Amino acid sequence: MSGVEKPFVISCGDPAGVGPEIICKTWLERKNFNSRPFFVAGNFADFDDVYNIPVVKISEPAEATFAFDKALPVLHIYDGDITRLGEPTLDGAQCALHALEIASGLARSGDTGAVITAPVSKSQLYRVGFRYPGQTEFVSERCGIARENAVMMLGGPSLRVIPMTTHIPLKDVPSQLTHDLIVARTKSAAKAMTRNFGIENPRIAIAGLNPHAGENGNLGDEEKLVMQPAIDALLALGLNIRGPLPADTMFHEEARSQYDIALCPYHDQALIPLKTLHFFDGVNMTLGLPIVRTSPDHGTAFDIAGKNIADPRSMIAAIEMAATAVSNREKYDN
Amino acid sequence: MSGVEKPFVISCGDPAGVGPEIICKTWLERKNFNSRPFFVAGNFADFDDVYNIPVVKISEPAEATFAFDKALPVLHIYDGDITRLGEPTLDGAQCALHALEIASGLARSGDTGAVITAPVSKSQLYRVGFRYPGQTEFVSERCGIARENAVMMLGGPSLRVIPMTTHIPLKDVPSQLTHDLIVARTKSAAKAMTRNFGIENPRIAIAGLNPHAGENGNLGDEEKLVMQPAIDALLALGLNIRGPLPADTMFHEEARSQYDIALCPYHDQALIPLKTLHFFDGVNMTLGLPIVRTSPDHGTAFDIAGKNIADPRSMIAAIEMAATAVSNREKYDN
Repeated sequence: MSGVEKPFVISCGDPAGVGPEIICKTWLERKNFNSRPFFVAGNFADFDDVYNIPVVKISEPAEATFAFDKALPVLHIYDGDITRLGEPTLDGAQCALHALEIASGLARSGDTGAVITAPVSKSQLYRVGFRYPGQTEFVSERCGIARENAVMMLGGPSLRVIPMTTHIPLKDVPSQLTHDLIVARTKSAAKAMTRNFGIENPRIAIAGLNPHAGENGNLGDEEKLVMQPAIDALLALGLNIRGPLPADTMFHEEARSQYDIALCPYHDQALIPLKTLHFFDGVNMTLGLPIVRTSPDHGTAFDIAGKNIADPRSMIAAIEMAATAVSNREKYDN
Repeated sequence: MSGVEKPFVISCGDPAGVGPEIICKTWLERKNFNSRPFFVAGNFADFDDVYNIPVVKISEPAEATFAFDKALPVLHIYDGDITRLGEPTLDGAQCALHALEIASGLARSGDTGAVITAPVSKSQLYRVGFRYPGQTEFVSERCGIARENAVMMLGGPSLRVIPMTTHIPLKDVPSQLTHDLIVARTKSAAKAMTRNFGIENPRIAIAGLNPHAGENGNLGDEEKLVMQPAIDALLALGLNIRGPLPADTMFHEEARSQYDIALCPYHDQALIPLKTLHFFDGVNMTLGLPIVRTSPDHGTAFDIAGKNIADPRSMIAAIEMAATAVSNREKYDN
């Protein structure tokens, strides 16, 4: 059975958040987006009779493919209490952590075609022994990839972005934006565009650090001293790159049509346009891993859990992006 | 004659850029947006028989009101050569500077209801003795307002933003984002929302400096040490403020409906969402002045000048925003 046919695994995320709800809503929508079969890794009790859909307990991933049409398959991996929605507990956090561990392992072993991770609460996870900045770093280390080589990409229907630095204070960004980082992130992006999205010779746009990309050195010199030399080195490798570009004029519709992916020096430069345009259907994908890993681009939303108002579009988009990546890898990785 | 009835003056901007073309296209559209009468301050030769519309030389602003229906009124203020489109000259830069000086003076004296400034080339202006960071600072000093008290607001149909710091290197932002700056910009914003847009008790959103607004101090401490105390001081004055908010989730449609204006610590945080959403119809307005001054939110675009492809929407929106401000000031300033 090739990766194209294997089911996907969704780690349940914090069961007190909206994760289980959007997973169930996604299952209900499965025919509308021609979904790959998927199953949840989680506590069966958190799904059974909670969301008004049929659920079925499976005992191994392969069963999911056949069970998926009639019910949401759940791989029961945690014997905990039933979680009250909107009221996170340490037991629920343990369940989320177990699910993440097992789902990552199933993807790594090849038993599933991809792993999609539902939202967790990092502050809750830290209380049960989690020691990573986020799920991305956890999954990358499970894959034997140093966490600094796992790259966060956010994508929506009209834009893909990579923040070259991620969750650090703004004041640390200029010193962390090094030649080597720019080169590494851009090479990773170029490779990922091909193997995940089938885009050969992808068009890459790189945003400047300073307003107006430094305006020829008048508004900051990092573009001249750091960014341009890195871009020159990448151009010499034959990559199709434009930059450093003024960030503010990179993201309107016409500008977006000029590139396949935008790399930005820091978090908000990349995440502001992505979430402005694709708040409800953005996907987080980890690049640089041997496995395909995506996740919906939102949090646990404890405040609305159990109200039946959570929007599953981001989860659906995460499954679709994973499916695209799995298909392309069949072609480009082999 | 009250401010509501006086014509608006448009400074011609660099005559080798798209300024004159979009002014003429705006005149052609005058009935479609029920335009206030306006006239251009510039070199008559740069408009006469160039853009296939009727133009008429006027000798004082008041003539514009009556001439406007049949032709674009031009107040001839510079006896220079005819400018070749797309080929900026020092003579053209001189004309742009004269036009800006005279247009500002006419607005300040009350002979016109507002001044709209067409795009200039700063690098060209610097070669003819201009000594300001931009037109905003020039106009504010002509109004007797210290340049640091003139506030740049960008607005489009679905978003208004103020970058609290503007054209400075990113690395200088954290140190320049002071308590006093946040308080001053926010008070200015609140006052401006009322007198220019008629919004009493405006809803103000303030973005955090760091990713996720610092995530409770884990990703930077400026939110706790600087921003929250400033916001507390503003709340104590009775202002309707939320913040510091994570910048990346502030600008999708649902989020935008929750505030009237967003203040951001730095340029790209504010300008990225604005130009992502409103690249062709964004307006730059200077707050804190005794006069109404707006401008289209784009540059001279020398590369497309003379090709008849420049888009006048931003100029039209600048006139409409100025008209809104003039009407509201009649009510709120008196």
